[in-house]
Formats: sequence, structure tokens, C-alpha cells
Amino acid sequence: MKVHNSKIFVDTTHETDIIDISHEVKEKVLQSDVDNGNIAIFIPGSTAALTTIEFESGAVNDLRKAIERIVPRDTYYEHDRRWGDGNGYSHVRAALLGASLTIPVVNGAPLLGTWQQIVLLDFDNRPRRREIKVQIMGE
Amino acid sequence: MKVHNSKIFVDTTHETDIIDISHEVKEKVLQSDVDNGNIAIFIPGSTAALTTIEFESGAVNDLRKAIERIVPRDTYYEHDRRWGDGNGYSHVRAALLGASLTIPVVNGAPLLGTWQQIVLLDFDNRPRRREIKVQIMGE
Amino acid sequence: MKVHNSKIFVDTTHETDIIDISHEVKEKVLQSDVDNGNIAIFIPGSTAALTTIEFESGAVNDLRKAIERIVPRDTYYEHDRRWGDGNGYSHVRAALLGASLTIPVVNGAPLLGTWQQIVLLDFDNRPRRREIKVQIMGE
Repeated sequence: MKVHNSKIFVDTTHETDIIDISHEVKEKVLQSDVDNGNIAIFIPGSTAALTTIEFESGAVNDLRKAIERIVPRDTYYEHDRRWGDGNGYSHVRAALLGASLTIPVVNGAPLLGTWQQIVLLDFDNRPRRREIKVQIMGE
Repeated sequence: MKVHNSKIFVDTTHETDIIDISHEVKEKVLQSDVDNGNIAIFIPGSTAALTTIEFESGAVNDLRKAIERIVPRDTYYEHDRRWGDGNGYSHVRAALLGASLTIPVVNGAPLLGTWQQIVLLDFDNRPRRREIKVQIMGE
Repeated sequence: MKVHNSKIFVDTTHETDIIDISHEVKEKVLQSDVDNGNIAIFIPGSTAALTTIEFESGAVNDLRKAIERIVPRDTYYEHDRRWGDGNGYSHVRAALLGASLTIPVVNGAPLLGTWQQIVLLDFDNRPRRREIKVQIMGE
């Protein structure tokens, strides 16, 4: 069994960036030399999340709008009153969407659908350099 | 260590189907001969998701209604305008609910609660044959 | 490869408790003697969930209020009509938030962000003794 740890770096803006990292994840799987196993992807921090989506700008914008409707930026957040950094909405969105994602690997490739991409969602209100952890375990 | 890959096939309708796959998953664990390890369940595609729930029709209908309220079918989706397939809501719902689920296995059985079942949620607006990936890793 | 299974016990109240279990999870990783691998955390039952958040009372209260807004306690639930236990909202919340969380372990520690904690969310309407499953797999 092998355990292969790696990182993907992504620079984000102050908007709700939704960024396709599928290509980078697939590269890490190739580098890991794991044929059969799985990928645990994790985003450290409390203002970003991971999910999968068909990465075309319509669906991506629809997701962004839905999140804005479900957890509006401009409502009252206790976090903002205490810390004054104005990103209370970012924390709530990140906790709802979730920081982890696990995908099986078979024959050296993640079992994604044809129109399914892995995305980072960065909800913070300032640009960030994100470090996504990618761990591949298997044989 | 063993890595056991298998698939569960489920036929769905055009409604928001919520389908109990716990029995099939437990069968796969038995077939894998893994006593101690975990199950990574993943649904390829971008209009379906996985979660756990008490599978009784009241709770299942409540979840369906809540999702309809949170991400309504009949609102404007940019995806629909571009692609004309009318399933913009399906993509947003799937991205929010998530495509992956990991459950520990101890003594040859998943550590589910007594009233907790594993379900596929199919949000698409047409019948689909779904192929759920079930990977069991352990010893 | 090692597979280390353990449990964390948490006593909850009838409110929506959001409880930091990071310290206990880190202890389990030390006990497992796994340097390199991952943690699968899972909550059996259908009225609780797991996520990560910056564990300060502002953000935690904001999350609690957002969940109350998204899945209100005092609306009609079919589950309640059938079973009369009044926790229909708990089932829907748990299914939306999710019962599983996977975190990579490198050099004997989970790869959490500095301000990111692992939390149990107990949505039930009565006090519970929760048993959280923590499985660490790796080398």
C-alpha cells in the first residue's frame, strides 16, 4: 500500500470563486503511482469548501446564486460584530458545503462522471492563496 | 490490505427519487471480505447525490420538500438558458448535497445507526440508470 | 498498514448543540500510531451531522441561525405526523449536513487549518449520548 501526499495551490479573489481543480487532481493521481485506491481531498481553513459540479459557466453561476440566496452576504452575522472582518457569511457557507471529498481511483483514474468536475469554492471576502491537500492511498 | 471495487445499479424516474441502497452496500462489504476498513461510496454525474437518512416515507418526503424549498425547480437557471435541458435545479441540488460518502467498516459491517440508511438522491428531470461506485478498503 | 477504530462519546442537550471534538480526534490519531493516512469520522444516527468551522461563538451561532432559517423547526413535517416525536426538522437537517467527514493525516496530525475545528451538530429535540466513530487508516 502507498500513501501519497501532495498539495494544489490556487490563488483566489474576493468574490465567491468556484475553481475547477480536476486536472490537477488527476495529475496527482498519476504521480502517486496508485492504480487502485482513493483520493481524500481536503481544504484547510474555515471559509472555503469542496464539491463536484458540471463545470460550465451556467451551472456554476446558478450554484453561486443559490448559495447567495441560501446564506446571504448582507445579513447580520455575530461573527462580524465580534471580529470586524466582514466574512461571517463565508464561515457559514463553508460549514454547510463541507471541507472534504473522497473519490475512488480505479485503473489510475478518479471515477468522475464525464461532465463532473472537482471544484474549490472560496467564500472569503479577500484574495487568498489556498493550499488544497490531496492524499492518494492504495496500491 | 485489500481494495474491492464494485458498482450498484439503480433505475430512477424523472422525479426527485430518494432510494435506499443500504442493503446493496452491505452485500458489497460481505463480498469484499474486508472486516476492518472503510467504504467510499461515490456517484458519478452531476445531477445526483448521496447522504444518510432514516428511510421512512415521512422523513424522506420532508427532505424532498425541504430541497424543493431551498433550491426550487421553477426559478430561473442560467444553465437552462444555455443548454435547454431544463435541469439547472438538478445541478445546483447535486453540488449542495455532495457526491461522496465514507463509512467505516468494523467486524464486516458498516457502522450505520439502527435507523440510518444510505440513500441515492437523483435530481435529474429524466429517468436515468445510475451506476454508484462502492469501494471497500481494509483488511 | 494499520486500521485503528475508536469512539468519542459526547452528551448533548435538546437544543442544536454544536460541539468541538477536534481535541479528542487528535488524541485518537496519536493513539493509533499512524503517521501517514487518514481519519474517517462518522456519526451513526439520523439526527446529527459533522462538519468543520472556526469554533468561536459568533460563527457557531451564525451557523445555528442559518440552519434554523434554511430548515425551520416550526413548520409542517410529515415525519412528526406519523411518529409524533416532533423531530422531523432534525432528520432533514442531518441529511443535508451529512454524517461523514474524512481528513488526511500527515506526520501524525490531521491537516486542519489553524482556525478550523471538527464539530458534531446534534439536531435532536432531546438529550442524547452520542457515539462518534473515528477510524484511522495508514502507516
